[in-house]
Amino acid sequence: MTVTRRELLSSTAMAALGLAVSRPAHAAPACCASQPAESKKAAFRLSSQLGPIPGKQLPEKLALMEQWGFEAVELPGNCVGKEEEFEKALKNSRLKISALCWGSASGALVSEIPEKRVEGIKLLKGAIDTASRLGCIGVIYVPAFNKQTKLTNQEIRAIVLDVLPAIGEYALQKKTRVLLEPLNRKEAFFLRQLADGAAICRDCNTPGVHMMGDFYHMAIEETSAMGAFLSAGSYLDHVHLASKTRVMPGQDPEDAAFYQDGFRGLKAIGYHGYCSFECGCRGDRKVEIPKALEFLRQQWAKA
Amino acid sequence: MTVTRRELLSSTAMAALGLAVSRPAHAAPACCASQPAESKKAAFRLSSQLGPIPGKQLPEKLALMEQWGFEAVELPGNCVGKEEEFEKALKNSRLKISALCWGSASGALVSEIPEKRVEGIKLLKGAIDTASRLGCIGVIYVPAFNKQTKLTNQEIRAIVLDVLPAIGEYALQKKTRVLLEPLNRKEAFFLRQLADGAAICRDCNTPGVHMMGDFYHMAIEETSAMGAFLSAGSYLDHVHLASKTRVMPGQDPEDAAFYQDGFRGLKAIGYHGYCSFECGCRGDRKVEIPKALEFLRQQWAKA
Repeated sequence: MTVTRRELLSSTAMAALGLAVSRPAHAAPACCASQPAESKKAAFRLSSQLGPIPGKQLPEKLALMEQWGFEAVELPGNCVGKEEEFEKALKNSRLKISALCWGSASGALVSEIPEKRVEGIKLLKGAIDTASRLGCIGVIYVPAFNKQTKLTNQEIRAIVLDVLPAIGEYALQKKTRVLLEPLNRKEAFFLRQLADGAAICRDCNTPGVHMMGDFYHMAIEETSAMGAFLSAGSYLDHVHLASKTRVMPGQDPEDAAFYQDGFRGLKAIGYHGYCSFECGCRGDRKVEIPKALEFLRQQWAKA
Repeated sequence: MTVTRRELLSSTAMAALGLAVSRPAHAAPACCASQPAESKKAAFRLSSQLGPIPGKQLPEKLALMEQWGFEAVELPGNCVGKEEEFEKALKNSRLKISALCWGSASGALVSEIPEKRVEGIKLLKGAIDTASRLGCIGVIYVPAFNKQTKLTNQEIRAIVLDVLPAIGEYALQKKTRVLLEPLNRKEAFFLRQLADGAAICRDCNTPGVHMMGDFYHMAIEETSAMGAFLSAGSYLDHVHLASKTRVMPGQDPEDAAFYQDGFRGLKAIGYHGYCSFECGCRGDRKVEIPKALEFLRQQWAKA
């Protein structure tokens, strides 16, 4: 590396590498910006990743999901490059598409190596192209898992704010979005809480950069699931469902209170995006998934 | 420095420097731990720092505060070492004492230099002694303002979790507490949001380490004042009042909606600690302070 740390992070350095650098006007402080519109009615709309659903082939999984009352399917990151296969399978299904669960591309976009960051932008744009083609609501994006970058929290945040607004605008043009996902500290030291994610969305200042929340990570990092969802507010476009130990919702002892608290938050912000399974399962999936769906509907009703 | 970065942060290194290292069992994930007890009734209890109150001498300020209906006074950090002077002035006042607004001691406790950290602990314990003697509810503590430490976010957090639980226990024995204060990014890159502060309190796992919130900093860093207070939950022991630009509450255009949103959060968590003025003033204080008090009572009633 021939640039200093400071140079590494500058817009000029990024521009020299051929990146379209967008720096929108910093959003005005807006403590109430994400306040719920009282007229906006929340809705409980179920989705799932393919992993938790039993079945060997895609059509078999999709049929079971329809049978169980799922409204949408969340697509895996590896559908990038296999769009035709997914299009074909989904053509025969009544299921809609929720998000594309993509990831971090090895943290490329926030790497300490500028060349990798250029590659990271290309890869994220590629995922956006796929999400657009398949009709996904957004691309779930993690800036970096632990050990994927040598940069610090502040440095990563500076890069994200430097680069993501333009990528968000690119996604908007393609009728989709980037969805930041806060994880827990065991997986990522950067972006662990929904309030932090919401502050990044606000600072990015484009509806092309929104976020999601995952009950499993929230169980580890948040002190209030309701408070976290209120902070996410109108930036929240997707939710992952799991028990506190990442099996089916309802399979852990404290799940009922936990979900009611979180669902109160979703109702308060008028959330009507998808709630999507990303979890393992203790026991027979064909028995446990319908139980989990019933559990979730009960907690939503009680919230 | 003769120790590596890793050694610098280790408990062993701290112990070698003569520090009492306490590492409590990591608190179990508790997304609902700070949920409001529905029976707990919130109360709006007013306090102020001395700075915003007109008057040259302490007795004059205290008399005005009583006249205006303040319940308590927040003491400045420089009362450490001047306990007798403050005791004398306060003896003739009906005002109670809220917090001791102390600060960071130049970020000593989270310095990159281990010897400074030892000094930082001594200084914080000294402030706790003063708070205890004067009957303060807690010592307001900022780990580091910007440029006061070379350590990163993660490194500072590791030190805080290593050292603060034992200091919190020390404070508890003295019938007071350490109160972490989240600031905005222009003042501190570490600890900017209430949810982050609450997660640190939870991880410290002692009622000797609690936190506060400040409407001014929250206007910059939080996307939802209500969400932030819900996340702070039962860890919240003190609140600072100011308008969005840090003058008297109500002096900025959007203050009404902002305060109603925050007060809804305080009511939801059954907050009954003090709300204390830390702000400047546009105009004549003798006119503007009573107006601000009326403004605040109105927003509390509407929330």
